[in-house]
Amino acid sequence: MLKYPNFSFDITARDSKSSARLGLLKTPHGTIETPNYIFCGTKATVKALSPAQLREAQTDIILSNTYHLMLQPGADLVEKMGGLHKFMQWDGPLLTDSGGFQVFSMGHGSCADEIKGRDKSHENKSLLKITEEGAVFRSYIDGAKIKLTPESSMDIQRKLGADLLMQFDECTAYHDSEDYTAKSMAMSMRWGDRCLEAFALNDNGAQGLYGIVQGGVYEGLRTESAAYTKDRPFFGTAIGGCLGGTDEEMRGIVEWSAPHIHPDRPVHFLGIGRIRDVFTFVRLGIDTFDCVIPTRLARHGVAFVKGQAKETINIKNARYRDDPSPLDETMDLPASRDFSKAYIYHLLKANELLGIQILAQHNVATFNRLMREVRQAIRDGNLDELEKEWLSS
Amino acid sequence: MLKYPNFSFDITARDSKSSARLGLLKTPHGTIETPNYIFCGTKATVKALSPAQLREAQTDIILSNTYHLMLQPGADLVEKMGGLHKFMQWDGPLLTDSGGFQVFSMGHGSCADEIKGRDKSHENKSLLKITEEGAVFRSYIDGAKIKLTPESSMDIQRKLGADLLMQFDECTAYHDSEDYTAKSMAMSMRWGDRCLEAFALNDNGAQGLYGIVQGGVYEGLRTESAAYTKDRPFFGTAIGGCLGGTDEEMRGIVEWSAPHIHPDRPVHFLGIGRIRDVFTFVRLGIDTFDCVIPTRLARHGVAFVKGQAKETINIKNARYRDDPSPLDETMDLPASRDFSKAYIYHLLKANELLGIQILAQHNVATFNRLMREVRQAIRDGNLDELEKEWLSS
Repeated sequence: MLKYPNFSFDITARDSKSSARLGLLKTPHGTIETPNYIFCGTKATVKALSPAQLREAQTDIILSNTYHLMLQPGADLVEKMGGLHKFMQWDGPLLTDSGGFQVFSMGHGSCADEIKGRDKSHENKSLLKITEEGAVFRSYIDGAKIKLTPESSMDIQRKLGADLLMQFDECTAYHDSEDYTAKSMAMSMRWGDRCLEAFALNDNGAQGLYGIVQGGVYEGLRTESAAYTKDRPFFGTAIGGCLGGTDEEMRGIVEWSAPHIHPDRPVHFLGIGRIRDVFTFVRLGIDTFDCVIPTRLARHGVAFVKGQAKETINIKNARYRDDPSPLDETMDLPASRDFSKAYIYHLLKANELLGIQILAQHNVATFNRLMREVRQAIRDGNLDELEKEWLSS
Repeated sequence: MLKYPNFSFDITARDSKSSARLGLLKTPHGTIETPNYIFCGTKATVKALSPAQLREAQTDIILSNTYHLMLQPGADLVEKMGGLHKFMQWDGPLLTDSGGFQVFSMGHGSCADEIKGRDKSHENKSLLKITEEGAVFRSYIDGAKIKLTPESSMDIQRKLGADLLMQFDECTAYHDSEDYTAKSMAMSMRWGDRCLEAFALNDNGAQGLYGIVQGGVYEGLRTESAAYTKDRPFFGTAIGGCLGGTDEEMRGIVEWSAPHIHPDRPVHFLGIGRIRDVFTFVRLGIDTFDCVIPTRLARHGVAFVKGQAKETINIKNARYRDDPSPLDETMDLPASRDFSKAYIYHLLKANELLGIQILAQHNVATFNRLMREVRQAIRDGNLDELEKEWLSS
């Protein structure tokens, strides 16, 4: 039986009005407070930001994608270079996913379409075959045929050496029938057991494995999948797969799953969220979030700002051309406090990398501030008021 | 008569074996030691680096290009935003050029071809007309016809608000005849006088104006142009224009000019140098250098490294794929000391911005270290030994 002696999750306080909770998630690379936000360092770098800039933005934890790293530079190389922490010079807690999500859901485009239920499956030309053994796909780097199985995903994630790992699972799509989704889920459970077995074989206490709740948009399947993860010796639970086509569907899926997952384990919500998602889902017991939007939208000129009903402003808008005000003067970060919007507008228009760097760091810092304030609000019992502060213009 | 009360240049020591000298160049935004290197922040940003990262790399002084800024975002906007220092959040000494160099020499490509004597004049489609009044060219932003004159260059540079300004001059090309170069030089002198007059009209003590030595590859013209700058109330002297097709020609041009320029004023070498250029030309009395290569080559995956006969290594070379060593472990900078070459290789292969950021900061730090060591070597009288340390593999 897996024990995870170097990991722990302690729930230190609970919200009186919701299932929101405060926790301490301990890993071999440090302990983080939850709820927290895990920033995407897809290819062993959070895009446009150095580790020092992540720390300056008060980042606690990041993730990297097994799918991308297994293709380039390869898990063996990362292991030879001392593991992902050393390779990317990030000494804090680090998570890797299983690789399955990208194989099944994105081919080599955006993951958001599948999570949000937009059917773009016809665009996924890289996935060649799914069998009981695993999945075969083509590398987007060199076109090579590559097989990913529960065992190889565990092997790759062990070599990468992150603190928190994900089981290999099939990520179904919005258009998949209940019948297909049920069969897929059953296979993901068998894959989960194979992951646990492969993980246990090489377990040296340095990593903690999460099981993933699948089941698409079907209540019965979600509860069954949640119960499966609860009964297995995973360290944490992740809610994954297709989360519906609307905010209501997504909320429903978490509401079905949450009561059946292990109450004492950290719960991660895969690939979500916006600011409003954080408020919605911490109340349903989510402990950690991850999403590319803080850094991806930065590359499109978008800044997340507290006190915006729409969450963001687009600095490429002509109204900012001569705006001397900073992104957010209340933040203790040069990127947010010192540069004028007019300057960032200029940098974006001139295609200068510094514009993206400033926005990426500001957005990361803004989500870290959001999570700090959410934790304080759970402590103080005023999540509703904080949500209004963030999402009212 | 212009007095530049807030500026000074004090020569504090001289090399016994050459014309190399140590100086203190005082500006309203701080005093720098010379010889020094001025990094190019073309469009109001040193590409890929924040002001904090420049400081971390021990940068003393940067420049920005009038040509680019007048087109985007425009000098009026920069003035409205409080001037270039505030706009780009750089509080140290700052230089702007006159705009002429790009108008005449690059159209909208690279400046290096003209400085180095490669004839690409047929590619310059943006320059429409040169008259006694000034130059007319097309904006590369929107195709608008724009006139730049000595007076408008001074006006624009005053609005930008840098500490050190350059007179407007025509930059001739390698293929230009002695006759054409002579006539052009005479016009640049008249333009220099008009610059001095326009500058004096609005002088408030915040800026210092450099005259520029022109004259192409012709000794007589270089000495005549140098004598002109000496006789006029410029704060500093720059050596500009076409510098020949070989290292020998470039050296010759500076050797002709140097004895005739004002001995007590700071001497800037426009658009040069590599590491070997720094060693060659500090010995001929050059006090400041500028060149895009530290940051431009970074964007091509190239790192400057002390102790390399070729000055650089190309991290995109397959030999670095699994090289665990850092760029330079002797430097007190995370970019140089902490990341492995294998990681930077991976970032470059994956088109990750962090790869460029790391190399740009390392290269800037390396040139700043070069200049610190050059100053110490002038003090200690061992420039020859230092040159061997830098340029022997």
